[in-house]
Amino acid sequence: MKLMQKTIDGIRPLDEGTMDKAKKRMDSLIKPIGSLGRLEEFAVQIAGITGNVNNTFEKKCTIVMAADNGICEEGVSSAPQSLTAVQSINFTKGIAAISVLSKHAGADIAVVDIGIKGELADSKVISRKVSYGTKNMVKEPAMTREQAIKAVETGIEIASDLIDSGCKLLGTGEMGIGNTSTSSAMLMVLTGAKADEVVGKGAGLTEEDFEKKKRAIEKAISINNPQKDDVIDVLAKVGGLDIAGLAGCYLAAAEKKVPIVIDGFISVMAALTAYKLNPLARDYMIPSHCSDEPGYKKASQALGLESVLNLHMRLGEGTGCPLMFNIIEASQAVMANMATFDEAALENDYLVDIR
Amino acid sequence: MKLMQKTIDGIRPLDEGTMDKAKKRMDSLIKPIGSLGRLEEFAVQIAGITGNVNNTFEKKCTIVMAADNGICEEGVSSAPQSLTAVQSINFTKGIAAISVLSKHAGADIAVVDIGIKGELADSKVISRKVSYGTKNMVKEPAMTREQAIKAVETGIEIASDLIDSGCKLLGTGEMGIGNTSTSSAMLMVLTGAKADEVVGKGAGLTEEDFEKKKRAIEKAISINNPQKDDVIDVLAKVGGLDIAGLAGCYLAAAEKKVPIVIDGFISVMAALTAYKLNPLARDYMIPSHCSDEPGYKKASQALGLESVLNLHMRLGEGTGCPLMFNIIEASQAVMANMATFDEAALENDYLVDIR
Repeated sequence: MKLMQKTIDGIRPLDEGTMDKAKKRMDSLIKPIGSLGRLEEFAVQIAGITGNVNNTFEKKCTIVMAADNGICEEGVSSAPQSLTAVQSINFTKGIAAISVLSKHAGADIAVVDIGIKGELADSKVISRKVSYGTKNMVKEPAMTREQAIKAVETGIEIASDLIDSGCKLLGTGEMGIGNTSTSSAMLMVLTGAKADEVVGKGAGLTEEDFEKKKRAIEKAISINNPQKDDVIDVLAKVGGLDIAGLAGCYLAAAEKKVPIVIDGFISVMAALTAYKLNPLARDYMIPSHCSDEPGYKKASQALGLESVLNLHMRLGEGTGCPLMFNIIEASQAVMANMATFDEAALENDYLVDIR
Repeated sequence: MKLMQKTIDGIRPLDEGTMDKAKKRMDSLIKPIGSLGRLEEFAVQIAGITGNVNNTFEKKCTIVMAADNGICEEGVSSAPQSLTAVQSINFTKGIAAISVLSKHAGADIAVVDIGIKGELADSKVISRKVSYGTKNMVKEPAMTREQAIKAVETGIEIASDLIDSGCKLLGTGEMGIGNTSTSSAMLMVLTGAKADEVVGKGAGLTEEDFEKKKRAIEKAISINNPQKDDVIDVLAKVGGLDIAGLAGCYLAAAEKKVPIVIDGFISVMAALTAYKLNPLARDYMIPSHCSDEPGYKKASQALGLESVLNLHMRLGEGTGCPLMFNIIEASQAVMANMATFDEAALENDYLVDIR
């Protein structure tokens, strides 16, 4: 609790002075002002985050929080619960989507067992288990308040360790069968949205199971009665350990002044959780793709951030992050390597004849 | 004329057999089917283009067609016309946005003087001038029909040469003060759109000059009376040499089975021109960003392609292409490097205890 509160309280606004310098530099480059749009905005935002006009990201990492969800008992997912464990290990073997896309981007992944139901033998998954999955929120709160806070603090520690070891850019991903149900439940409580607006079919539910999923989520909310103005209460009662862990990552990144990229629906719900704990945390976040999970857009609007990549992806794992890392690095290349009008004019003797 | 017609006639449909194989492989990878959205679709499309399930793009290049437009006499642009020449040279010096972003993507650029008004002394710009800019289309046709075809054929030759020298992925960019006016004029003729719907303020016109721009474009259309069913007539009368050259690039890429990326408004108008010459050409195109130029969306809809990057860029030069190259290469990494369910199952003995 002390670590969480200390981290929340330690988040400062972006460095306006450096942002002014970055904006001035960007406006002096040989292009119409603003014509590179958000590429310019990301470079200026990152200057405000780090306090440096120029930034490079040799070391960058997507943190993948893996956890199981008790609501799977209700048959809300088409995939077996064991897939949470299996895929978490696959991530570390370099054979899953997040592994392949991260390697393509020159980025690392840190896969964290923050609450998988079962023991993982001999793997590169980082073991930071808060519990063996959550309880079935249709019958009782998913977690105790203490567990939720412990998971947030675990995320703070994981992100802080990565930053301390030289990581300059973070991404957020997850693996957890049933976590579109927890994300939908949190979104419904926090925004008042209805199940029909935000619940999706996940990896491929039948119509019947889809209806069951919506009713289960509604029941979880009604029996637990989470208090929407107390986001930790919402997180504990109808959230998940993965969401809590990622919320901690966002808080730590903001407190330690490191840009952090949002992936899809679960990731953006964790971002919204961090934002509710301290709205300043949002200034350190960068969106990536617009997930096809129906809740994503609503959550993204609640957070007030507009996605960049329109790829109709709905996988999770953090797969939007390495794609976005490349665009963020492109924005830094523009800042560092384009010439200013003054610099270009110095060489401007090559035009012989403008008729 | 012969080269253009031969190229148009030589375009074949995508290779369905290879696309089936690629789709099958994609569906066997360890993720829910379709969950990587358009990343999967691009990989399958490219398999259909090249006839190979796996593709790599060591050599990739954005072709930047540079040309001047006679309509600049009417004061339709806030920038001096000489900027076409100055920026074209800056591109080759590695200091402009397209140069920096291409270097970031490990890609080349080929800057082509297809109609700059003036001689460029001693530069790396490829000299393939069809004329010293076009005529003022508010007073007479921008080009003769022969000039338009010659410019298309120049584009075919440039793209073909690059492909013959090993280039496996192409992008399309341009530099030409006044070319949002020509693009708007062509779009209005081809789709029946009104000036108020598609004409933008370019790099930063005053309200007064913006009105002047719209009226000039309308006048160019009314005095030249281009025939909408004859896209070469439209191109010649109210288009530009850059658009014509890029249209040729799209045709050559399709004929030679190489994927080609669309940039912004001018680039998509060239794509639409190629599509009107042979609708099959579209299957070889891949969109990149959604330009903030108001005509882009309308042109993109007319072409039937949905953009990928939402960055509010409006620079041109081809700047969307290197950003998209990275995403295309990510789609290839997925195809080549993810494991199938069968492969992953072979190692599936690491789960000790699912409680």
